[in-house]
Amino acid sequence: MTGSAPAERSTRDRLVGAAARLFQERGYAATGLAEILALSGAPKGSLYHYFPGGKEDLAIAAAELAGARFRQSLAQEMDDASSTPDLVRKFGARLAGWLDKSGFTQGCPLATLALEQAPHSPALSATLSELLDGWQTVLAGRLEADGLGPARSAELATLILSGLEGALILARVAHNTAPLDRSVTALSSLIAAEISRLAR
Amino acid sequence: MTGSAPAERSTRDRLVGAAARLFQERGYAATGLAEILALSGAPKGSLYHYFPGGKEDLAIAAAELAGARFRQSLAQEMDDASSTPDLVRKFGARLAGWLDKSGFTQGCPLATLALEQAPHSPALSATLSELLDGWQTVLAGRLEADGLGPARSAELATLILSGLEGALILARVAHNTAPLDRSVTALSSLIAAEISRLAR
Repeated sequence: MTGSAPAERSTRDRLVGAAARLFQERGYAATGLAEILALSGAPKGSLYHYFPGGKEDLAIAAAELAGARFRQSLAQEMDDASSTPDLVRKFGARLAGWLDKSGFTQGCPLATLALEQAPHSPALSATLSELLDGWQTVLAGRLEADGLGPARSAELATLILSGLEGALILARVAHNTAPLDRSVTALSSLIAAEISRLAR
Repeated sequence: MTGSAPAERSTRDRLVGAAARLFQERGYAATGLAEILALSGAPKGSLYHYFPGGKEDLAIAAAELAGARFRQSLAQEMDDASSTPDLVRKFGARLAGWLDKSGFTQGCPLATLALEQAPHSPALSATLSELLDGWQTVLAGRLEADGLGPARSAELATLILSGLEGALILARVAHNTAPLDRSVTALSSLIAAEISRLAR
């Protein structure tokens, strides 16, 4: 809605921000629209004004917001990283910091939505799939810059994303970043070894 | 309850089986006790008789049931596998088969419970943590049998479990086993390369 006034956009943004946070912390089904409204401070009528499809529309917008934030963080680490293994270590440390700071309540904002809603909402699944594919494309591009071929880069990019997503689950349950640290160490060392084999 | 009659045990088992299936397919919050009762065919009074703590107690029992089944499948593949990379390929193919057969509705039975409930239920978190640690111990034992040291085996075991858990999320969202296949290929080839380096 490019023509909307700043105040309007800000109400929409507050709703999406509140939904993203509650879905991430509690999950989709456990979050009520009343709680999203209360956290956002938005007037009651605004929810169906901006999101006629209700909770599903809010989940799609929340996934897009969280996905854009995640991709921006990945891009920042990418600028500083000297190689894919270095990127995995730096981005892994950032994820561990987020998780720890939230008292292990905030993992990947997309994972809970994916597991709860993937088979039931084709529209949300399509959004999540596009975001997750986008992250893998970014990672695959970094691997190609390290000299790996396109097919192998795609495989390793999927493993990096899967390894981080899975480790966030283990770390949340353990209430400890150790599983994330172990996965990141294993990923970065295995990929470094493959890159150094190429150079021989 | 070792002294309970077969009929009593069967009612409890039906409740746990129904809860495990619904939590796996829909998540914890979206599943009502009435639906668990309906699917199980158990009489209404039986739920609080066997599970005085209600839904949380059922979730712990469901996680234990699903965890035992998963560990049994892993043990079966372990008997047939010639190495850790072979185990990862065989177990990955089994997971892909399950996921496909369920129309991508049934991923890891523990992951959704973990993401929805981990910070809110210390008792459930402790159960999930113990089960996930047990799977990592089994995988680490297989890696040590391939000649890797204990610390490295622990790291790689965490990465294998994380990589499979994360890939199940990507595959459910994509409605396609391709992300799981890519992760499994990457994991097994990277670990095979590390094992062959040891042999040199």
